[in-house]
Amino acid sequence: MSEPITLIQPEWIVPVEPANTVLRDHDIAIAGEMIHELLPRAAAAERYPEARRIPLPGHLLTPGLVNLHTHASMALLRGVGDDMALKPWLEKRIWPLEARLMSREFVFDGAVLACDEMLRGGITCFNDMYFFPEAVADAARALGMRASLGIIVIDFPSAYGAGAADYLRKGLELRDRLGDDRLMSFCLAPHAPYSVGDDNLRQVATLANELGLPIHIHVHETDQELSDSIARYGVHPLERLDQLGLVGPDTIAVHAVHTSPAELDLMAQRGVSVAHCPHSNLKLGSGIAPAAGWLERGINVGIGTDGSASNNRLDLLGEARTAALLAKGSSGQADIWSAHQVLHSLTLAGARALGLGERIGSLKPAKYADMVAFDLRATELQPVYDPVSQLIHAAGRAAVAEVWVAGRHVVHMRQARTPAAQTLIPEVVARTRMWQNRVGDTLSGNAAP
Amino acid sequence: MSEPITLIQPEWIVPVEPANTVLRDHDIAIAGEMIHELLPRAAAAERYPEARRIPLPGHLLTPGLVNLHTHASMALLRGVGDDMALKPWLEKRIWPLEARLMSREFVFDGAVLACDEMLRGGITCFNDMYFFPEAVADAARALGMRASLGIIVIDFPSAYGAGAADYLRKGLELRDRLGDDRLMSFCLAPHAPYSVGDDNLRQVATLANELGLPIHIHVHETDQELSDSIARYGVHPLERLDQLGLVGPDTIAVHAVHTSPAELDLMAQRGVSVAHCPHSNLKLGSGIAPAAGWLERGINVGIGTDGSASNNRLDLLGEARTAALLAKGSSGQADIWSAHQVLHSLTLAGARALGLGERIGSLKPAKYADMVAFDLRATELQPVYDPVSQLIHAAGRAAVAEVWVAGRHVVHMRQARTPAAQTLIPEVVARTRMWQNRVGDTLSGNAAP
Repeated sequence: MSEPITLIQPEWIVPVEPANTVLRDHDIAIAGEMIHELLPRAAAAERYPEARRIPLPGHLLTPGLVNLHTHASMALLRGVGDDMALKPWLEKRIWPLEARLMSREFVFDGAVLACDEMLRGGITCFNDMYFFPEAVADAARALGMRASLGIIVIDFPSAYGAGAADYLRKGLELRDRLGDDRLMSFCLAPHAPYSVGDDNLRQVATLANELGLPIHIHVHETDQELSDSIARYGVHPLERLDQLGLVGPDTIAVHAVHTSPAELDLMAQRGVSVAHCPHSNLKLGSGIAPAAGWLERGINVGIGTDGSASNNRLDLLGEARTAALLAKGSSGQADIWSAHQVLHSLTLAGARALGLGERIGSLKPAKYADMVAFDLRATELQPVYDPVSQLIHAAGRAAVAEVWVAGRHVVHMRQARTPAAQTLIPEVVARTRMWQNRVGDTLSGNAAP
Repeated sequence: MSEPITLIQPEWIVPVEPANTVLRDHDIAIAGEMIHELLPRAAAAERYPEARRIPLPGHLLTPGLVNLHTHASMALLRGVGDDMALKPWLEKRIWPLEARLMSREFVFDGAVLACDEMLRGGITCFNDMYFFPEAVADAARALGMRASLGIIVIDFPSAYGAGAADYLRKGLELRDRLGDDRLMSFCLAPHAPYSVGDDNLRQVATLANELGLPIHIHVHETDQELSDSIARYGVHPLERLDQLGLVGPDTIAVHAVHTSPAELDLMAQRGVSVAHCPHSNLKLGSGIAPAAGWLERGINVGIGTDGSASNNRLDLLGEARTAALLAKGSSGQADIWSAHQVLHSLTLAGARALGLGERIGSLKPAKYADMVAFDLRATELQPVYDPVSQLIHAAGRAAVAEVWVAGRHVVHMRQARTPAAQTLIPEVVARTRMWQNRVGDTLSGNAAP
């Protein structure tokens, strides 16, 4: 082997594959960007006597978390639209603000804030949908994060592009440009059935097939979306998407709150993945998604935070805990979505939805070393009967101590540590006052035309 | 004035009374245990030129949080009963473990862990229901916390007492003994309608009237509780309690998940307070409480964490956020339970339920100085459009920086700081290994008889 070995030595490792496994006093041997092997501590000492060691007593090591749906840059709009339902939230707050503020700079600054929050919360990979994805890529690369960038498609123009064709062209150009960056991958991201017409959706389906890209789309988020679709197209959005060829194993259905048993069956048959965003669904009053129905059917369920404007935090660990509790409480089945299954949703399920299941999502030899170490030594976590239960149900993201992405140690002692991060984050924080003033001026009608 | 003044100088103060108020660049003047006044910073500088100052730039100051329902000592049982419904959870896990482990030491050690967790999470007062309340009192006093202690009543014997009469006698003795401690108050705490018979409930009602004590009781937690009550008593528990004189303005109805509109009307008419514990209700698969129904009727709703064995954390701020989101999502009304209203539930509503509404729960002159300062300067909280929204929806308990109880500065830079706390907490953490072994032995059937 050419790369030197580093041994990470936590108290517990939960590799996610194989399922329901807790390895105690094992080392994980990292070589460059990749996981080399997992082995008992004593065996590691014998096999790699010269290796660099990172001892992590009282820590739990898991795969990095995958945020399966977000709009990172909306970090700059956190809290501007509380206590509003989706339609007025979009039409009275978000779209007017975006119309006024959208720029490469806005997207970049918001994404830097979001990446810092996500990375320090144990998220190593996020699936983004927004304008100016090149600015999101720049932010993620600066912090050393993995990102799945949305090639956005929406029928209305913006500061980013003139319309669907222009958005597609720009997104595909970006994909060509970043083709060499192993941290960057892409989805086609038609915004929603109500904001993208049939022709553009057909074009997305064709491109997805040709290029082997996942399709990342909001669907069945509210009751009103369903009734509007019936009025306009005579069918529910899911059926319309299916007719247009957008419902398959590469589809990431975001939200899917309102789905009949027959629609759940269709999703299972087609092999669709779900990006479940319970906080956003609750906060916008959209409803409670049928998580028990997904799990019963074996649908691949990942978790997403959605954007900070409808959540209002990018705390995937907290999101997953709510997902599990809400599934139990709304179904009356206390035994569904165990802590181990939740960790699977947070990691491997998200990776598979993004087409990255062979590269990340579990701690297996020859996968990228995307990993999080949680410090479980806090008073409120004693005693630890089961580290996975403790992680999901008791520890919050405050327990995230160390993070690696592709073998690079990007968070140390809870702080982002790439040189670019250390320069950028204070600069962007300083600029938030300016963004705050511009948002305030727009909302109060005082913005310059 | 006899006591010297200390000026606390946060960026924002939210006093809760008056409602929906954010004071910017104000000082709060503390004299001994009490709040003396709130005034603009410039005026404070002029009026109190000699006062000690505690500048808190970027911090939000609120009243201390009131945890309206917990079993603090169950911190030692965190995570031993995941993925189980209430009845098997109680009958197969909790009651057998308690039968084996219950002792003054168990209750004390668990309560120390819980108090440390709660206090560092901004909780200054908790309403407890457990055996050996004197041990809970000792833990709270050591950390400088305010507690409302349950005079437990349950029909079965335990290591603490021989039965209801014995529990009452011991609880009332404790109340006499601690009568001088202004941090300690009491509730009568009949466990639940299914675990306390009519005669003992009547006795509780009589004592509550004579002594002016609140009644703290689990009620309508599960569907099964309702059907069992119909089978045994011919009526739902709430109606039975009403017939026995236990439903009134001094009643704290814990959970109240399954309640008909007529029962909600009764609760409103009687002036009952609710202790809403959404995480526990969800986790045990009990269901989703009708929070929108409470709020519409003007019922006084406080928030509780329940014990760590069914939550599994004592994070009241997180609990309240879930309460608000769940109310919005389950009712479809995105505009209910605003962040300001949530903060009211977390503070004044809880204080009023405990009969302490004149003493704590808001930042008003002549109330005790029970206060929390949240540091809102983290990257993920920038920019701050609205500090109350940011507190409830974006900041977690990790933002708690400083805590005062009755003017005493009990948490500084996120750490408990009374001398007793600094000695006790590491001692108790060291003993958790012993408790873990005893719990493990009991669950595996290896415990000594």
